[in-house]
Amino acid sequence: MHLRSLASFPGRISQTLSRSNSAGLLTAQSTHAQNIQTFTKKVKHAQLLTPSRSVNFRSTSLLSTSSHVKSRSQTEKKTTGVPASVTKFLECEDHLQLEYKGAKLKLNYVWLRDHCRTGDSINHLTQQRMVDSALIDPNIQPVNVAIDEGTLSITWPDGHQSEYDLEWLLSNTYEGKQHLQGTLEPLLWNLETLSASPSPSVSYQDYLTDDGQLSKLLHNLLKYGFAFVEEAPVTVEATLAVAERISQIRETFFGRFWCFTSDLERHDTAYTAEALGAHTDTTYLNEPAGVQVFHKMEHVGEGGDTLLVDGFHAAERLRQEDPEGFAILSSVSVPHHYLEPTIHTTGVGPVLELEPGPCKELKLIRYNMHDRACLDTVPMEDVSRWYSALRNLTRYIRDPASEYWVTLQPGRILLTYNWRVLHGRSAFTGRRRVAGCYLPRDDVISRARVLKVI
Amino acid sequence: MHLRSLASFPGRISQTLSRSNSAGLLTAQSTHAQNIQTFTKKVKHAQLLTPSRSVNFRSTSLLSTSSHVKSRSQTEKKTTGVPASVTKFLECEDHLQLEYKGAKLKLNYVWLRDHCRTGDSINHLTQQRMVDSALIDPNIQPVNVAIDEGTLSITWPDGHQSEYDLEWLLSNTYEGKQHLQGTLEPLLWNLETLSASPSPSVSYQDYLTDDGQLSKLLHNLLKYGFAFVEEAPVTVEATLAVAERISQIRETFFGRFWCFTSDLERHDTAYTAEALGAHTDTTYLNEPAGVQVFHKMEHVGEGGDTLLVDGFHAAERLRQEDPEGFAILSSVSVPHHYLEPTIHTTGVGPVLELEPGPCKELKLIRYNMHDRACLDTVPMEDVSRWYSALRNLTRYIRDPASEYWVTLQPGRILLTYNWRVLHGRSAFTGRRRVAGCYLPRDDVISRARVLKVI
Repeated sequence: MHLRSLASFPGRISQTLSRSNSAGLLTAQSTHAQNIQTFTKKVKHAQLLTPSRSVNFRSTSLLSTSSHVKSRSQTEKKTTGVPASVTKFLECEDHLQLEYKGAKLKLNYVWLRDHCRTGDSINHLTQQRMVDSALIDPNIQPVNVAIDEGTLSITWPDGHQSEYDLEWLLSNTYEGKQHLQGTLEPLLWNLETLSASPSPSVSYQDYLTDDGQLSKLLHNLLKYGFAFVEEAPVTVEATLAVAERISQIRETFFGRFWCFTSDLERHDTAYTAEALGAHTDTTYLNEPAGVQVFHKMEHVGEGGDTLLVDGFHAAERLRQEDPEGFAILSSVSVPHHYLEPTIHTTGVGPVLELEPGPCKELKLIRYNMHDRACLDTVPMEDVSRWYSALRNLTRYIRDPASEYWVTLQPGRILLTYNWRVLHGRSAFTGRRRVAGCYLPRDDVISRARVLKVI
Repeated sequence: MHLRSLASFPGRISQTLSRSNSAGLLTAQSTHAQNIQTFTKKVKHAQLLTPSRSVNFRSTSLLSTSSHVKSRSQTEKKTTGVPASVTKFLECEDHLQLEYKGAKLKLNYVWLRDHCRTGDSINHLTQQRMVDSALIDPNIQPVNVAIDEGTLSITWPDGHQSEYDLEWLLSNTYEGKQHLQGTLEPLLWNLETLSASPSPSVSYQDYLTDDGQLSKLLHNLLKYGFAFVEEAPVTVEATLAVAERISQIRETFFGRFWCFTSDLERHDTAYTAEALGAHTDTTYLNEPAGVQVFHKMEHVGEGGDTLLVDGFHAAERLRQEDPEGFAILSSVSVPHHYLEPTIHTTGVGPVLELEPGPCKELKLIRYNMHDRACLDTVPMEDVSRWYSALRNLTRYIRDPASEYWVTLQPGRILLTYNWRVLHGRSAFTGRRRVAGCYLPRDDVISRARVLKVI
């Protein structure tokens, strides 16, 4: 992340950046649309001034390769003697081709200029881009390209030098990412795999004082989709302390902190004594809550056990056994809603939402039969297939082999990753009070990144 | 919305619902996967018991129609004499066809059973679905269908009666929605159209005490994408009061309330004195902030004017003038990020996000050159087209005819709808302090719905 201290940028803070830089450095004095044309002309001029566009490899000899790519200046520049880790290196009309550690990278020149991490291209304090992406000449080409064991170096027409770590290119390109594994592989579980795994718990006191235990909790939360904090005081303050150790709380119209019992104070089945099937929460918000914190404060009566189901495990079964169903549930956005006399929210998104990019990992499951609103986002031709896919997914979710039942006791705080793990409860009798809150997913993930859990 | 009082459901609260209802009423005692088969058998049995599946229209005669749909029981049921508003009515194997006010509705039977609003199908207090969508027989067919001037009535194999208001069907189906207009049409503006429009302001005192003025502010906010509150006290409390009159605040890692000046306290260009080009905020969160509240508390110095640009106006120009560019910017999710030593968030989504459904309205623009992270979500084949589209969109955003410059004075609070309107500022000198906060979009829209602004 190369965060540098403020002291190393004494002149930057109060400067308005010049637009004359040929990469189009960012400035806001953009009331003059003709700047774009001016900029383009400048770059073309710079290219004309370049006497000969040599390809300068730091390695010494050229390797003959074959390729079907379009030629640049009629002939492709081919190389040998590039580092052993680079098995192909080819300079084409609008991109470089680079085979590194088995990944076939195609590096578009505009993309390369836009992603330069050197000089004035980026503010090293804020890590914010200084290049104005929209002002990069669409026909930009390097005047010089060099590669050594770890680094790709490019000289641009205006003389700007860029360097790219090859490992960085692997981690930050669509093609490179196909070859990478996450640092924390989630364990998709059913009852059987979960029984073979250690109980994901930390103790309250350790967790509050020891960053290692906080990391362990976040690891559990992201590996299993849930985690426990044990031996906590049975108070609202302790429950909040567990939450706020991770991040600020995500306030909703339920407040920062909620406490539900079967009084139907709110217009939601959670506020009844009914059984609740496995579901995810707050599907009626555009972005469902990331983490839910539950603390059963008291229960004098029977029942009310907590059900957990790994939604990603069920979704992956669907991907294997009904690929067409997986495709429709992951591409069609559907609405959910929440209605009270003074509240009417609508959340819209696919039941199974995927991360963008090459790997198509699951990002989020929205699953709530109660709160799903009218299916008005799919042409009627597709409605039947959508319901068929929902039936299959539901079959996997309700498979008894998927269901992990827990009896929560006061003092044992449960955190669920609501984007992945569904929760429910059995019906109950008597007085039962459960308190908790939501955390924003962005901030939970941020905390895990900063602590190097992921 | 038919919200009924709790008193009308005396027996519901503590009941666990029976699963034996043939529509599959929701219950959580779902550890028995065989319930699904049991349910299906029951429905088939019910169908067999039906002596003759008559089609009973409340109108008296049958209308001959032609259609290419598949036949049901070899012959389609055709009708005449249906209400004048219904120009076609046809019962097919797995759906009804209904032409109502020019909309060609195709009503799948599973969908119809799932969306029943009568009897035990819905909890009328919470408006939550009681039908278990996944347990509806995929081959379900009505035993009786009737239609009169305003209502479609269906009898299901288990005897359950459903009624659907035809206007409700128009508003809640994909095909019907193609024929509907929103209740508040946003005015997509440039400088010229804005000059011809009244200034969207309310006064602080009226706004705080009069729901009509709150409605006016929300109307302005959703029509123009921004609104002003005038004559406010120059205090943090007054600024918060303006925000909290609408909804709870959306807390981020900047806190509930922020106050920025050029001290670079946070690692963000907002905390400098530099000019900032038109951008949207918090693109580094999975869901960007819905509304931003700005209050310039003091400025002793020059510059620092506020720039507003209607992102949807620019996007619609792109849709007209570069449809391929619009398509790629609205389909490819791209990442943005925020980095400080203790924070690393990532937000991912398309630059132009569309509402799902038939109308393809704009939902959200994410536009921030500074915070855009590595473009690693697009195969390199598409990278060039993506940059080309971004260039065109930027051209429209930076068109001087798009730029509305405002000089904010202490006491004038600006609210921007951050999902639509971009903001920026000119460079400044001296001491300048701007305070504000974010509001969640879900809750702003909820407030507008409840007040019947939309």
